[in-house]
Amino acid sequence: MEAEGTTVGIIGLGLIGGSVALRLKQQGYADCILGSDLSGEAANEALSLGIINEISSTDNLLNRASVIVIAIPVDATKKILPQLLDNCKSNQVIIDMGSTKSAIARVVENHPNRSSYVACHPIAGTENNGPSAAFSTLYEGKVNIICDKELSNGKALETALEITEIMGMRVKYMNSVEHDRHIAYVSHLSHISSFTLGQTVLEVEENEKNIFDMAGSGFASTVRLAKSSPEMWAPIFVENSKNILEVLNAYIANLEQYKKMIEKADSSALFAAMKKTNRIRAVLENGAKQKSETKELIN
Amino acid sequence: MEAEGTTVGIIGLGLIGGSVALRLKQQGYADCILGSDLSGEAANEALSLGIINEISSTDNLLNRASVIVIAIPVDATKKILPQLLDNCKSNQVIIDMGSTKSAIARVVENHPNRSSYVACHPIAGTENNGPSAAFSTLYEGKVNIICDKELSNGKALETALEITEIMGMRVKYMNSVEHDRHIAYVSHLSHISSFTLGQTVLEVEENEKNIFDMAGSGFASTVRLAKSSPEMWAPIFVENSKNILEVLNAYIANLEQYKKMIEKADSSALFAAMKKTNRIRAVLENGAKQKSETKELIN
Repeated sequence: MEAEGTTVGIIGLGLIGGSVALRLKQQGYADCILGSDLSGEAANEALSLGIINEISSTDNLLNRASVIVIAIPVDATKKILPQLLDNCKSNQVIIDMGSTKSAIARVVENHPNRSSYVACHPIAGTENNGPSAAFSTLYEGKVNIICDKELSNGKALETALEITEIMGMRVKYMNSVEHDRHIAYVSHLSHISSFTLGQTVLEVEENEKNIFDMAGSGFASTVRLAKSSPEMWAPIFVENSKNILEVLNAYIANLEQYKKMIEKADSSALFAAMKKTNRIRAVLENGAKQKSETKELIN
Repeated sequence: MEAEGTTVGIIGLGLIGGSVALRLKQQGYADCILGSDLSGEAANEALSLGIINEISSTDNLLNRASVIVIAIPVDATKKILPQLLDNCKSNQVIIDMGSTKSAIARVVENHPNRSSYVACHPIAGTENNGPSAAFSTLYEGKVNIICDKELSNGKALETALEITEIMGMRVKYMNSVEHDRHIAYVSHLSHISSFTLGQTVLEVEENEKNIFDMAGSGFASTVRLAKSSPEMWAPIFVENSKNILEVLNAYIANLEQYKKMIEKADSSALFAAMKKTNRIRAVLENGAKQKSETKELIN
């Protein structure tokens, strides 16, 4: 356990960074949270909500924080991470929380201070953003993926694992290339399917008022991610374009297959396709079961 | 208010029919619920769960029930509805709950007893099915769409409205053609996007074990409808194929647009597209507000 009095720096005070700050303070890990955000409004909001103790410049943060958590869009992370590593002390630990990992990994792969950095992707979030969306239990029971752990030094990895535990998360190790390929399927595609669903219905709604009066909980559930932050998601789609394009092609091919079955009025083919996909229920339930078994192995 | 002692017949004892039965009994509208289901297992389950009072043949149901509610797949409704109308008494009321309306409407448009029938579509459901999925509050606060109301007689419409109120629903009137076009957008497309999302991820999962360990709540929300019943949905897709194909084409075109923006690494176009779709948040919230205003006008 860290000694009391740890100072933590958080760069990016939205849902992700704000929720880390709240949790680390609540659990007594952080004595003081220094926060930085490009938006002065967000920084002031985080301060007045008690998420951070001080609004801080990056320099001040590098001077005083023993741990720095980066929770900003992935393109911005690619810019700030090398700068932080240029100036960090040997016992400082820098963690990022971005949803794509290999582009960031490439930017720092030859950096002399690479080992002070731990690449994390906590699989947690909501469709809301900004400091007011943050809450201390966002990460509880979720998975934190740590990428390329062999490139981090012992102290850095240990700190990341301690924070993972304090956030109530289980850890999973992957390499960053594998991470980006898999996450394109289970996260990035969901966001695109949801954004395009929302777009399609909004486009027709211009001519067909009151269409949303007919929308039920199924539509609300499927379109929920279309409320997500474009600031965060545009960079993710660009950074992980190769994997996402592959996944999008597979998705569109499956939609075309449904189109063909519907054109042919082929009830039994539609039935068979849906029946097969119903397996998702068991897989998601088994996934939850496997996760708790994995926990035993890792902890 | 109906006199106590009303006997209601329910054809189809799954989530939809079972939930109507539970509600009508709980609220004291129905004294006796006669239930019929193609599956003997489902009928026995409904009986043992106390959803119905008696397992009944269609003939017995026609003899004894003053109201008959059809809650079976839409292709099966098209077959049974004319048979029920052939044999119904002048003061009996027949209601169906299917998710497509114009194909059913066409089947009975020239039937001499057409006016005993009320075409309903309660916008309510979950991804679960069978008698054990039924619960009495499924419909509370939701919208019941009544189609082509001018084709139903006064007594039939009055009964449907009374049941709508007892189920805790608000009513919305549409014609069946308009209904089917709109519902393709806000319900049928969501189901196809969710089924194909589940399929796409399951296909890659065959080679990439543990991918679901990386799935968060966003994926779970977007893929939830892929757990839905193929028995119910295959007929819906076939019955409403013309509208669904139009909607699917619009959806695929939007996905292709995302593909192009991602291929070009066009962050600002992606940002703009997502920002525009973020309006869905306000629209859904306004929709909820408008619904309660509409209630004032209709009731």
